[in-house]
Amino acid sequence: MSDSRAQALAYVQRHLADFEAALGELIAIPSISTDPAHKDDMRRAAQWLADRLQRLGAQRVALFDEGVHPLVFGELRAERDDAPTVLVYGHYDVQPAEPLDPWETPPFELVRRGDMLYARGVADMKGQVMAALAAVEAVRAAGQPVHFKFLFEGEEEIGSPGVARVLEAHADDFAAAFCLNPDAGMHDRDMPSITYALRGLAYFELWVSGPSHDLHSGLYGGAIHNPAQALAELIAGMHDAQGRVTLPGFYDAVRPLSDEERQRLAQVPFDDEAFLQQAGAPGLWGEPDYSVYERTTARPTVEVNGLLAGFTGEGSKTIIPARAMAKISMRLVADQTPEHAAASLRRYLEQHAPPTVRWELVEMVGAPPAYVDMHAPQVQALAQALQAVWQREPLYVRGGGTIPIVAELQRRGIPSVLTGFALPGANAHGPNENLHRPTWQKGIQALVHFFYNL
Amino acid sequence: MSDSRAQALAYVQRHLADFEAALGELIAIPSISTDPAHKDDMRRAAQWLADRLQRLGAQRVALFDEGVHPLVFGELRAERDDAPTVLVYGHYDVQPAEPLDPWETPPFELVRRGDMLYARGVADMKGQVMAALAAVEAVRAAGQPVHFKFLFEGEEEIGSPGVARVLEAHADDFAAAFCLNPDAGMHDRDMPSITYALRGLAYFELWVSGPSHDLHSGLYGGAIHNPAQALAELIAGMHDAQGRVTLPGFYDAVRPLSDEERQRLAQVPFDDEAFLQQAGAPGLWGEPDYSVYERTTARPTVEVNGLLAGFTGEGSKTIIPARAMAKISMRLVADQTPEHAAASLRRYLEQHAPPTVRWELVEMVGAPPAYVDMHAPQVQALAQALQAVWQREPLYVRGGGTIPIVAELQRRGIPSVLTGFALPGANAHGPNENLHRPTWQKGIQALVHFFYNL
Repeated sequence: MSDSRAQALAYVQRHLADFEAALGELIAIPSISTDPAHKDDMRRAAQWLADRLQRLGAQRVALFDEGVHPLVFGELRAERDDAPTVLVYGHYDVQPAEPLDPWETPPFELVRRGDMLYARGVADMKGQVMAALAAVEAVRAAGQPVHFKFLFEGEEEIGSPGVARVLEAHADDFAAAFCLNPDAGMHDRDMPSITYALRGLAYFELWVSGPSHDLHSGLYGGAIHNPAQALAELIAGMHDAQGRVTLPGFYDAVRPLSDEERQRLAQVPFDDEAFLQQAGAPGLWGEPDYSVYERTTARPTVEVNGLLAGFTGEGSKTIIPARAMAKISMRLVADQTPEHAAASLRRYLEQHAPPTVRWELVEMVGAPPAYVDMHAPQVQALAQALQAVWQREPLYVRGGGTIPIVAELQRRGIPSVLTGFALPGANAHGPNENLHRPTWQKGIQALVHFFYNL
Repeated sequence: MSDSRAQALAYVQRHLADFEAALGELIAIPSISTDPAHKDDMRRAAQWLADRLQRLGAQRVALFDEGVHPLVFGELRAERDDAPTVLVYGHYDVQPAEPLDPWETPPFELVRRGDMLYARGVADMKGQVMAALAAVEAVRAAGQPVHFKFLFEGEEEIGSPGVARVLEAHADDFAAAFCLNPDAGMHDRDMPSITYALRGLAYFELWVSGPSHDLHSGLYGGAIHNPAQALAELIAGMHDAQGRVTLPGFYDAVRPLSDEERQRLAQVPFDDEAFLQQAGAPGLWGEPDYSVYERTTARPTVEVNGLLAGFTGEGSKTIIPARAMAKISMRLVADQTPEHAAASLRRYLEQHAPPTVRWELVEMVGAPPAYVDMHAPQVQALAQALQAVWQREPLYVRGGGTIPIVAELQRRGIPSVLTGFALPGANAHGPNENLHRPTWQKGIQALVHFFYNL
């Protein structure tokens, strides 16, 4: 072990109480992004982070105000000019604490009971932010191996509506080789994990129209193509009987799962029965060649999010509706893009929409899928770091959802590696949110290792 | 020509002015069924008709109040006890006159200009009611060949919500061999017509559900069957590529069109281009083996009247909706029944709904199709009557819609023969509603012939 690494790890051990105290300060600021009454608290929390970065010796610290809440930027350069740049991501906003009754201790007070720390945001994600800052402080003290940049947003819990604007306005500031995002969790205190891929998103409104106005079905029924029926026919044709998407070229850009990757994914604890029970559906569905976990994380989908046509009130009205609308979204995987997905849907409609109706496809939000090869140096650096602390290989995990900041950074050429130290049962967003203190402390050590492994 | 018939026709000629004056009295009562402010006028109009029947010598006259507005019942027996019973149908309610500006003369005043009579309800259908009463008066004076019963409702313009209740409460009173319904129109002043068939109706809500709650499409998409998609798949499968209904047994009870019937239907003026233009759709659609007129009148259909699922507001929401709903209706033709149609749909769902979703079919309103064979004695009696006056064979017409009173009587074993003397351009429901006076007078004569032909 290098001297610096050993010194940094020792620094962590000596300062654990300080880190926990600092976390307590951050926790005490009720930075609830959803609640306008806490607007000042949002700025206080941002300022607290900016001060912390300043104390670490940051060359630059700034609060950017192009978004909804301040976004904290900071830069902490290593001595070696040609060191790689790591963008450390975090969000300082939290969910409201309500309902308050079930809380056993005040939500905005960091309370330790046994091995657990309790407070709103302790898991999601002020604890993770503090773990990253602690590791940075330690490596800073012992000999900083990489340049750090920081991006602490205050909008994660409201969908990051303003973050893209900030990144656009300060693109050069945020330039980095990759982003460390400790906002993911662990499957178990003994199972460190790395989320190396997330699905992207493409969202559409599909309008099918026919008659210029709602028609009397008695007078026109049988000789005019019903737009609601035509829409249903188009939607039905988007999947085959096995649940595969039939849009032309839809899968062309999909990076196939390697045998190794599938083996890794098979190690991720995933309970099909529990999944089905949580969904409450009568059965599983989808591409037979893939496991449920793969279907929901490593395979792209086409979903109908909403349908609206004609008369939907109480009772009966006998019309052929003039038009019908479907909200359609896709979850995308590497190396699909929202643009490619839209073209695929458009080609399908051009080929299959009958001449008896008109159609219009409105492209709404899109986000690219996120993917870092598990053999990429950053992923391996993190894997070895986690292994050094937990004495076992981490799980390689894919997420099925889309995280706006990850998609936005990906769009700007900055891949994210996600990890985190919150356990199942951490009750993020719920009462008695908690963090397993020994796991958190291990997390700090792992991040130290990570920075030296880069 | 029999003496009685000749006398009755002469009676009509002598009393045309009286009939027109009587029509003027009925017109002057603004019996607008949709407007609660005219509730008293509704009763006045009903009473006017009851008085008229009394004057004709009716053995029984009654206003039945089980519905929304009074329903006038009357019975006028022939001398010959074994004469058949004709139920004469009419509705005394009218649409509002608004907007008043375009009216050239006051809507509730019968005004004659040239060959035309103008007033609200003169075509739809006080003029037709008066034609029937005039013919009845004439045959009554000359020797009544059939028993008459009368059913004058005041709810036609509001969908006859209470008529079934009245018929149920007084089923014996309304017993008749068939019903004469003069609420249909003519294609041209030289083209008398008989509507011998109407389509029936079956109306459903189809619910498809899966998850117990809306699911996050990022977490579940790909492994849970989307209920909106499943609904679309079920709807899509209800027609083949040619627009034929695929529900098992759906067409089994459909009475095939005979060559003669198709020849008759082909004589009905029907302009496909004008039809398409009125619909405003990009093209015609439907069963290729049938003309547009046949498709919309003589063939049964399955229509989607409404669709509702998931998120339909502005913007995007990435959910797998817990459930999806379609309003589905069918137009039925003889000898289908709503019960048979529902069973057919249910069988389809049992066969095709996948085990990955649940479904529920709610049966709503149903009305049987109406059909009288064009060779039936009543139809031929009417055809000969029209031919006697117009010197040409009538058109044999089918209607694509469902008329509640016709369906209700059909359900009670009383078939209806529809005819009428309003011309295209009569502006029923619009301003300057009108009736061609010579055609109306011919209509009275034709009904006299009809009664003697029975």
